[in-house]
Amino acid sequence: MGAKTNTGRFFEDYAVGQTLHHAVPRTIKMGERALYHMLYPARHALYSSDQFAQSCGLPFSPLDDLIGFHVVFGKTVPDVSLNAVANLGYAQGRWSTPVWPGDTLRAVSQVIGVKQNSNGKTGVIWVRTTGFNQHDETVLEYVRWVMVRKGNLDAPAPETVVPDLPKAVAAQDLVIPRGLDFTSYDFTLAGEPHRFGDYEIGEQIDHVDGVTVEDAEHMMATRLWQNTAKVHFDTTARPDGTRLIYGGHVISMARALSFNGLANAQMIVGLNGGAHANPCLAGDTIRAWSEVLDKAETSAPGVGALRLRLVATKGGAPFVLRDEDGKYRPEVLLDLDYWALVPT
Amino acid sequence: MGAKTNTGRFFEDYAVGQTLHHAVPRTIKMGERALYHMLYPARHALYSSDQFAQSCGLPFSPLDDLIGFHVVFGKTVPDVSLNAVANLGYAQGRWSTPVWPGDTLRAVSQVIGVKQNSNGKTGVIWVRTTGFNQHDETVLEYVRWVMVRKGNLDAPAPETVVPDLPKAVAAQDLVIPRGLDFTSYDFTLAGEPHRFGDYEIGEQIDHVDGVTVEDAEHMMATRLWQNTAKVHFDTTARPDGTRLIYGGHVISMARALSFNGLANAQMIVGLNGGAHANPCLAGDTIRAWSEVLDKAETSAPGVGALRLRLVATKGGAPFVLRDEDGKYRPEVLLDLDYWALVPT
Amino acid sequence: MGAKTNTGRFFEDYAVGQTLHHAVPRTIKMGERALYHMLYPARHALYSSDQFAQSCGLPFSPLDDLIGFHVVFGKTVPDVSLNAVANLGYAQGRWSTPVWPGDTLRAVSQVIGVKQNSNGKTGVIWVRTTGFNQHDETVLEYVRWVMVRKGNLDAPAPETVVPDLPKAVAAQDLVIPRGLDFTSYDFTLAGEPHRFGDYEIGEQIDHVDGVTVEDAEHMMATRLWQNTAKVHFDTTARPDGTRLIYGGHVISMARALSFNGLANAQMIVGLNGGAHANPCLAGDTIRAWSEVLDKAETSAPGVGALRLRLVATKGGAPFVLRDEDGKYRPEVLLDLDYWALVPT
Repeated sequence: MGAKTNTGRFFEDYAVGQTLHHAVPRTIKMGERALYHMLYPARHALYSSDQFAQSCGLPFSPLDDLIGFHVVFGKTVPDVSLNAVANLGYAQGRWSTPVWPGDTLRAVSQVIGVKQNSNGKTGVIWVRTTGFNQHDETVLEYVRWVMVRKGNLDAPAPETVVPDLPKAVAAQDLVIPRGLDFTSYDFTLAGEPHRFGDYEIGEQIDHVDGVTVEDAEHMMATRLWQNTAKVHFDTTARPDGTRLIYGGHVISMARALSFNGLANAQMIVGLNGGAHANPCLAGDTIRAWSEVLDKAETSAPGVGALRLRLVATKGGAPFVLRDEDGKYRPEVLLDLDYWALVPT
Repeated sequence: MGAKTNTGRFFEDYAVGQTLHHAVPRTIKMGERALYHMLYPARHALYSSDQFAQSCGLPFSPLDDLIGFHVVFGKTVPDVSLNAVANLGYAQGRWSTPVWPGDTLRAVSQVIGVKQNSNGKTGVIWVRTTGFNQHDETVLEYVRWVMVRKGNLDAPAPETVVPDLPKAVAAQDLVIPRGLDFTSYDFTLAGEPHRFGDYEIGEQIDHVDGVTVEDAEHMMATRLWQNTAKVHFDTTARPDGTRLIYGGHVISMARALSFNGLANAQMIVGLNGGAHANPCLAGDTIRAWSEVLDKAETSAPGVGALRLRLVATKGGAPFVLRDEDGKYRPEVLLDLDYWALVPT
Repeated sequence: MGAKTNTGRFFEDYAVGQTLHHAVPRTIKMGERALYHMLYPARHALYSSDQFAQSCGLPFSPLDDLIGFHVVFGKTVPDVSLNAVANLGYAQGRWSTPVWPGDTLRAVSQVIGVKQNSNGKTGVIWVRTTGFNQHDETVLEYVRWVMVRKGNLDAPAPETVVPDLPKAVAAQDLVIPRGLDFTSYDFTLAGEPHRFGDYEIGEQIDHVDGVTVEDAEHMMATRLWQNTAKVHFDTTARPDGTRLIYGGHVISMARALSFNGLANAQMIVGLNGGAHANPCLAGDTIRAWSEVLDKAETSAPGVGALRLRLVATKGGAPFVLRDEDGKYRPEVLLDLDYWALVPT
């Protein structure tokens, strides 16, 4: 292995307080939006039509919120998760500014927690990642924790620091995009009549549709976000010769499928938490169901917020999440907790 | 199944005179053109080069005519064909205005015919669909008829109305894009020397090339048009576990292959009819042949019109369409009848 | 086979001095860049971020240099290699002007050599191909030689003309893009600290990462370049039913993988030579290693040039190129020799 090659950081290379400046800023334009709509069955009208976005008070249609997430996430991979064993969770995710075609995104992370595991071979690190646009405005931020291998098993265990993370972003901390106004919202063009008042806390929605995924697709998606983790691309990287599908691919697929029942949950503004419960592989048929966890009003005209659980599965019945012992059922791929903006 | 999910309309939900306003308008830009050229071997020069289009009197290169068709068609799926058993035919298709990068398309359909089948379980509906751009100009329109399941077998049969549809759009009803002028047409850059006068009615052309299709590709294409029909995406939707390839994917593939022999049949302006004769599945190798059905002059300088039969196959010899009993041969995928504009 | 179909040229159709004007000019915009980043793990910052490109003295981010190469190459296929048996080599490749979004490329080739093989059934032709933009500026040029079948075995052998081709483009003949200035180069954003002075002639770099390739991907890439060679698309074109992956797909994949160790080898400006040593097929896992062959200073501020050997493999150990008998080892896919610009 050449000395010039990045072999990734190991657990002992992280320390609380470190700042990681991630490489390769990325200018995103309409081509990336077209690709997003080719890779996922995305249909939310605000992200499909400039005219629809203008009728909601925006200058034109922003890029899908998850494009920003994936691009920022992808930038962190070479510094955070190249030697990761598992992506353990997300918290405190917040979108602050829409990504507009032509924006250039870069990402910076701070190490906010480290904890060596008792086996002495791995540890958990927590990073708070912030994505910036070319105006140095924060586009989005989130906390993520991953289990990372130690490179040198003799390296001493660091002092354990586990950050205190709230279970959800408080509704009043959500950032509503400037100008957003749903008072002239066209429910016919959006595709469904259901508004804020039609959703009840505890309500569950089966999104019905399924998509069987292929290796060519998830590799193209993952590359598009400049995510370089070997396990997604190289059949020799895992013992069984499969390519693990990037968890973000499952997030985007499930979110797009949730249009059917949540067509008006237009903008994602908060990521409260998320677990990639089981691996997703080519040939799996992804389905999704949602549960309304909370509701909140906002200060923007005609705009409410729904806190939603989005569950992706690869089979089994909807609305079943865990076994009797509290573990995720084997067919559950994703358990995501997010805030979305809907018309009131 | 959640009450908020669209389960699609059944035969008894349609009545002659209904207007269906289809959801999710779509802004289309250069990204979609790039994707079209990635998904199909499209090479017609007018759609490949802004300079070539300008030499033909257009402001710049329009989006491929079938992009407009697929986007409009895709919008109709949730309202027209989610519970369709078969897509039976097309008629009276006409392109009125090119789609330019940045245009936003939406679609509206009118129910113009209904006929319950004698089995009492299904019926045929005829819809006339119109695609509009953001200026409310008609971009294209066409009639399509599909066989749809009844949801409630006890629903009474409606009065039968079968629209009277001509076999072809009359040449004088074709709309020539404003400014189109083929008098300075560059046959070298276009790729072939054959002009209007070189084609004879009855002439047949084997387009020679073949493309073996993959699931990843047709799913990406079909998603790009926001077409949500389950059978294209979900291996659990059909008894044999295959994913049926969207008929429009075969149309675009065959049209692109027809460049070889019809490189100068630049613009599609009429769709006289079409049948998806047999299912197309991943692994099939699509080939195409054409027959000149008719010729007509137009009022635009240097512009003639060819009425062409475009046949796509998955094997077998070219120029063989039907068995002795008049049925399409099993290897025939598509029998399309359209008008194209060529230099005189 | 219809008389209007292009069956391609055979060996006897070429003569030294011929000029071939290739068809179908192509306007390339941001959509094609987005696709390039979806198809290959491309991460060189100059081609990813407008702001990074501006910090290097360019107006904004150009399209990846290999996009220009592939588009020009694709245009030549119908006239040069439709009946080719093998793509034998490249020489004297030089990029003169970056391709900017919105440029329209066309291509012209001159036949500069012909040599019938002793078997009387095939021959070698040499062509010098030039790609032009819409301002008739040369974008790139290269010499390529291919083995072509004779169509008529009785055609007389032409007088042998073998062009005298240098082993490499001289460093002083490289064209540095106007304005390029690496004196404010941001190594952190670029992803690696290694500069011109850190690379030594003879140094070898293992790029570590691997990508297992799929049929859907390479067909989409090859179509994107409007390359129509049957063997890439049609499972009936080769006796074993495989689809041969376009050699340029391997070039782009290997170049993108070389980011890991050569993140600062930003711009490709010369193609000294190249051999597609063995066929690449779906399922192969492409890896890459590089060797520094030469170094040169340039007149541009902060800009040096590295001459690099880029080897792509489908297995085996890095840095092993040939067997004892001097033949390429069976796992070697590509042996490419090029010049790249790096910060000093």
